[in-house]
Amino acid sequence: MEVQISHLQYAIDTFYFLVCGALVMWMAAGFSMLEAGLVRSKNTTEILTKNIALYSISCIMYLLCGYAIMYDGGLGLIAIESVKESEVLASFAEKENPLLGDAVYSSASDFFFQVVFVATAMSIVSGAVAERMKLWAFLAFAVVMTGVIYPIEGAWTWNGASVFGMFKLEDLGFSDFAGSGIVHMAGASAALSGVLFLGARTGKYTPTGKAVAIPGANMPLAALGTFILWMGWFGFNGGSVLKLSDIGSANSVAMVFLNTNAAAASGVIGALLTSMVLFKKADLTMALNGALAGLVVITAEPSTPTALTASLFGLIAGIVVVFSILGLDKLRIDDPVGAISVHGVVGLLGLLIVPITNPDVLLVGQIAGALTIFVWVFVSSSVVWWILDKVVGLRVTKQQEYEGVDRSECGVDAYPEFIK
Amino acid sequence: MEVQISHLQYAIDTFYFLVCGALVMWMAAGFSMLEAGLVRSKNTTEILTKNIALYSISCIMYLLCGYAIMYDGGLGLIAIESVKESEVLASFAEKENPLLGDAVYSSASDFFFQVVFVATAMSIVSGAVAERMKLWAFLAFAVVMTGVIYPIEGAWTWNGASVFGMFKLEDLGFSDFAGSGIVHMAGASAALSGVLFLGARTGKYTPTGKAVAIPGANMPLAALGTFILWMGWFGFNGGSVLKLSDIGSANSVAMVFLNTNAAAASGVIGALLTSMVLFKKADLTMALNGALAGLVVITAEPSTPTALTASLFGLIAGIVVVFSILGLDKLRIDDPVGAISVHGVVGLLGLLIVPITNPDVLLVGQIAGALTIFVWVFVSSSVVWWILDKVVGLRVTKQQEYEGVDRSECGVDAYPEFIK
Amino acid sequence: MEVQISHLQYAIDTFYFLVCGALVMWMAAGFSMLEAGLVRSKNTTEILTKNIALYSISCIMYLLCGYAIMYDGGLGLIAIESVKESEVLASFAEKENPLLGDAVYSSASDFFFQVVFVATAMSIVSGAVAERMKLWAFLAFAVVMTGVIYPIEGAWTWNGASVFGMFKLEDLGFSDFAGSGIVHMAGASAALSGVLFLGARTGKYTPTGKAVAIPGANMPLAALGTFILWMGWFGFNGGSVLKLSDIGSANSVAMVFLNTNAAAASGVIGALLTSMVLFKKADLTMALNGALAGLVVITAEPSTPTALTASLFGLIAGIVVVFSILGLDKLRIDDPVGAISVHGVVGLLGLLIVPITNPDVLLVGQIAGALTIFVWVFVSSSVVWWILDKVVGLRVTKQQEYEGVDRSECGVDAYPEFIK
Repeated sequence: MEVQISHLQYAIDTFYFLVCGALVMWMAAGFSMLEAGLVRSKNTTEILTKNIALYSISCIMYLLCGYAIMYDGGLGLIAIESVKESEVLASFAEKENPLLGDAVYSSASDFFFQVVFVATAMSIVSGAVAERMKLWAFLAFAVVMTGVIYPIEGAWTWNGASVFGMFKLEDLGFSDFAGSGIVHMAGASAALSGVLFLGARTGKYTPTGKAVAIPGANMPLAALGTFILWMGWFGFNGGSVLKLSDIGSANSVAMVFLNTNAAAASGVIGALLTSMVLFKKADLTMALNGALAGLVVITAEPSTPTALTASLFGLIAGIVVVFSILGLDKLRIDDPVGAISVHGVVGLLGLLIVPITNPDVLLVGQIAGALTIFVWVFVSSSVVWWILDKVVGLRVTKQQEYEGVDRSECGVDAYPEFIK
Repeated sequence: MEVQISHLQYAIDTFYFLVCGALVMWMAAGFSMLEAGLVRSKNTTEILTKNIALYSISCIMYLLCGYAIMYDGGLGLIAIESVKESEVLASFAEKENPLLGDAVYSSASDFFFQVVFVATAMSIVSGAVAERMKLWAFLAFAVVMTGVIYPIEGAWTWNGASVFGMFKLEDLGFSDFAGSGIVHMAGASAALSGVLFLGARTGKYTPTGKAVAIPGANMPLAALGTFILWMGWFGFNGGSVLKLSDIGSANSVAMVFLNTNAAAASGVIGALLTSMVLFKKADLTMALNGALAGLVVITAEPSTPTALTASLFGLIAGIVVVFSILGLDKLRIDDPVGAISVHGVVGLLGLLIVPITNPDVLLVGQIAGALTIFVWVFVSSSVVWWILDKVVGLRVTKQQEYEGVDRSECGVDAYPEFIK
Repeated sequence: MEVQISHLQYAIDTFYFLVCGALVMWMAAGFSMLEAGLVRSKNTTEILTKNIALYSISCIMYLLCGYAIMYDGGLGLIAIESVKESEVLASFAEKENPLLGDAVYSSASDFFFQVVFVATAMSIVSGAVAERMKLWAFLAFAVVMTGVIYPIEGAWTWNGASVFGMFKLEDLGFSDFAGSGIVHMAGASAALSGVLFLGARTGKYTPTGKAVAIPGANMPLAALGTFILWMGWFGFNGGSVLKLSDIGSANSVAMVFLNTNAAAASGVIGALLTSMVLFKKADLTMALNGALAGLVVITAEPSTPTALTASLFGLIAGIVVVFSILGLDKLRIDDPVGAISVHGVVGLLGLLIVPITNPDVLLVGQIAGALTIFVWVFVSSSVVWWILDKVVGLRVTKQQEYEGVDRSECGVDAYPEFIK
């Protein structure tokens, strides 16, 4: 009967991983819709193409080498093999209470859950460089980012590898539960580098440096994308408990769902109130970014705060993100969808507040970890962007930008009948 | 080993709740898309803002006081705490077969499942008052509705509290499995009150009282919203079994999924055939409302009907909803998305047919319960709408209504390039 | 305690089926959005109506007679009954290790999972005949297809019934894990027949036979539909393992998720690279069809390939589908959404490659099975189309086609404010 219980535990934890993974995969649709809603109609087909292509590249590159780099310290084609039944049963048999301790689950389910995280990190870049980058330069960057850059920092953080043989982040008291830093700030760091290489969209800033609003073409799409991301985030954070099958783990997963939802909700409220104070209007795009900011901020530690604390963190994130978006515009850093603010600035904030609710984590460790991630991703990304700029060029021509990249890159209009 | 089985049961039932809760949360996206598709483009940003804000307010208000009112009879900040492992195990140990009887699961998962129901009730109001209400008046109403009005009637029905110390609905033989009345009719009652305070949209009725069609701007969004709601409803009804982990409960959950789907499907068919007979056209908006009517009607009791009976109920609901929509227009009750018909009229129908398949439920109890819910929600809502009308005003100005509330309330056009 | 384990196993496998079924139901939304994005705006409402109606008809017809034909060899109203608890427990008690061997789960969950497959098959037809078919002729076809034609071939393949008393496909070494042939190629066979009866859309081919591009009206919808289908496919293929609750089955389900995702991802890459070579543009519609082709090709056997092999199969499918779409246009077979290529040509390919990774399957058996399915569905569909053509006519008038079928069939414009 012990054996039967082991079978059930294995099945439950595997299924839990797969369900959470499917929800994270769904976030790819969320980023696509969000970004497609926030760009102009002439650049919509291209951003859709970019999103489905980057998701696909992430999946294949992580299979070819990323997973191996991140979890085995090696390179080469990985052959995902499910653990053999006899080995699983043997591993259970060794423990007094086989349900407690680490979960045992299908390694294929683990890969599936991990691979969709890579795609999330890469999706963040896509929005920030929208409306002016060459599609194939972007996709080439995606190959390196998802196959090498992300897996290396992922190894340092989630696999406990040492940073270039120097130190281990976990020894410094660093913790990043589901990836405010490892996934979100990392993506934003690559995005920031890309935006600095690219420069702003033509017409975004007046000669005197004032930002000109360039409204997105389709608000319902942007709202849909946000709802999709919100839903998918239950898998993103909830699955990061990594185990469901005992009372303690199940409680933790439930708390993570609850806190993730609460932080997003209060993020909306924080951003809406801020936009009322600043603009006297309930700015939908700020509300959407507020939701995402709440989600990002809680991702570094969604299991230890109470629901009220999580709500408070979300509220602060919702306020911060509005000021960050306005601030980056002041710096003439042109990020059409606000990705650097949402995932970078708020991702950092998320890392820094972990010690408030989790006494095992040190602020100095969080700062060190954030710096390590930022420096690595920003510098390595910059090298890649620089090479791509020299070799193929990053930016489309003025004429192509004026006509929209849909024509030049994809040859397909997004809304051929709505726009003359 | 008993202990291990208790762990597994707890994990399974918690996960089942969380998955169902995530599906219900997804319904927020469904309502957003449905309503955004059915209003005019000039009011689309505002309805999206309203929807994401009301969902957020619902989550925070239910956390702050709603859950406490509904389940503890008290007021005050609730600290959701997961039951301690030792307590859970003790509770299992007391039973002969710990799997039978009530489920034991994480209280955080219970809160998460409950909170998304509140948002559903509130979403219903949003569509009915579309295109002419001030955003902040609506959001203020949402605070009271989700923090107080809904939790009080929820306590009477799902927590067995007595109605103002007078009588208990369960003593009258009232039953509302997943909330045809408690959630849907309650939302529609608040909506009806709001619509009566607001009056019709300018131009909706000719001076002679004839209804003028005001077509929605985006049919694919409306269809998408309906499909999202359909999917989310599996969580709404399926999760309301409250337990999965024994054979009887699992059978019940499966039957609920099957019946929910069958009722929605036949609701589409009923509404389409009715629209063919009445208009000689296959009216998509009627088909969508037919699906929702099928879903609402089965919600009061999705576990006892056979699949054929569920289909029959859905068929009737699909027919009824078309006549109800036409009837309300005759009464000059202007409900842009048909929410009062779908959730109110059909919600009532759902309550009344429960005794046909569930012999433990009395028709008189259903009538009493429906009346109690309606009177409480309608009257208390009216008081709130009245106060809001006096203090801040409910209705935007004629000029704002003409230009669309997107400009005046949100400052963001939904489709800036498609509409000149 | 044995009894308790049986309860848990039953609950887990039932829930797994229900979750997978809900994901497959979600594919109905995917097909709706995909097709709504790829047709012109004047035919959008009608295709949405068609999609929600065909899903509904499928559910009701499969309930009324399809399931009975497919699994009982008989006709008549089916009364889905959940197995009684005592019977379930007795069936467990007979086995040495009750978890191994066939799963035992709620029959209602089985029906729910099966019924959404029928709708998938029917959805495939809808896109191919878009923009020129009478709505009610299509819906009448859906009644026969989902109530009779599909269930009969389903009985041959998934229920092991003999083909008209002559031979059994399983005896020939035929295998189709989740339905590349049974569902996808079958849908495409019915679609091909319909397209041949209907003829091409007016203006699709020049008098000299050159294909004229007719761009879809809404690319974000098409991309959204593809992402929805991708997500839903995890349920489609993952649920087809039919069991989760032991280590071997859980491994298999996980591998299926991983391979399904990998094949779709490489399908995108294959189609994009092909479109770059052929058109010098990253054609989004080809990328989307590439994703779907990857999904279809792996559906016949997603459990035996390694992830790299699955990726290779997807890559090939992504290349093949582009050439197939171009090829069908050369043959003047007008399929507005590419459904015949994606589901028919690639579905066949999927069947034929099964023996490469599954040594129990014979190529000759796959050919025989594919032929059997194609001949049956194509011929029986043709009879139905022919009758419908004679009795009510299949094609709308030239004038209706010119004005768009939304007006003539539904009386509702999809985007009344965007198009003048």
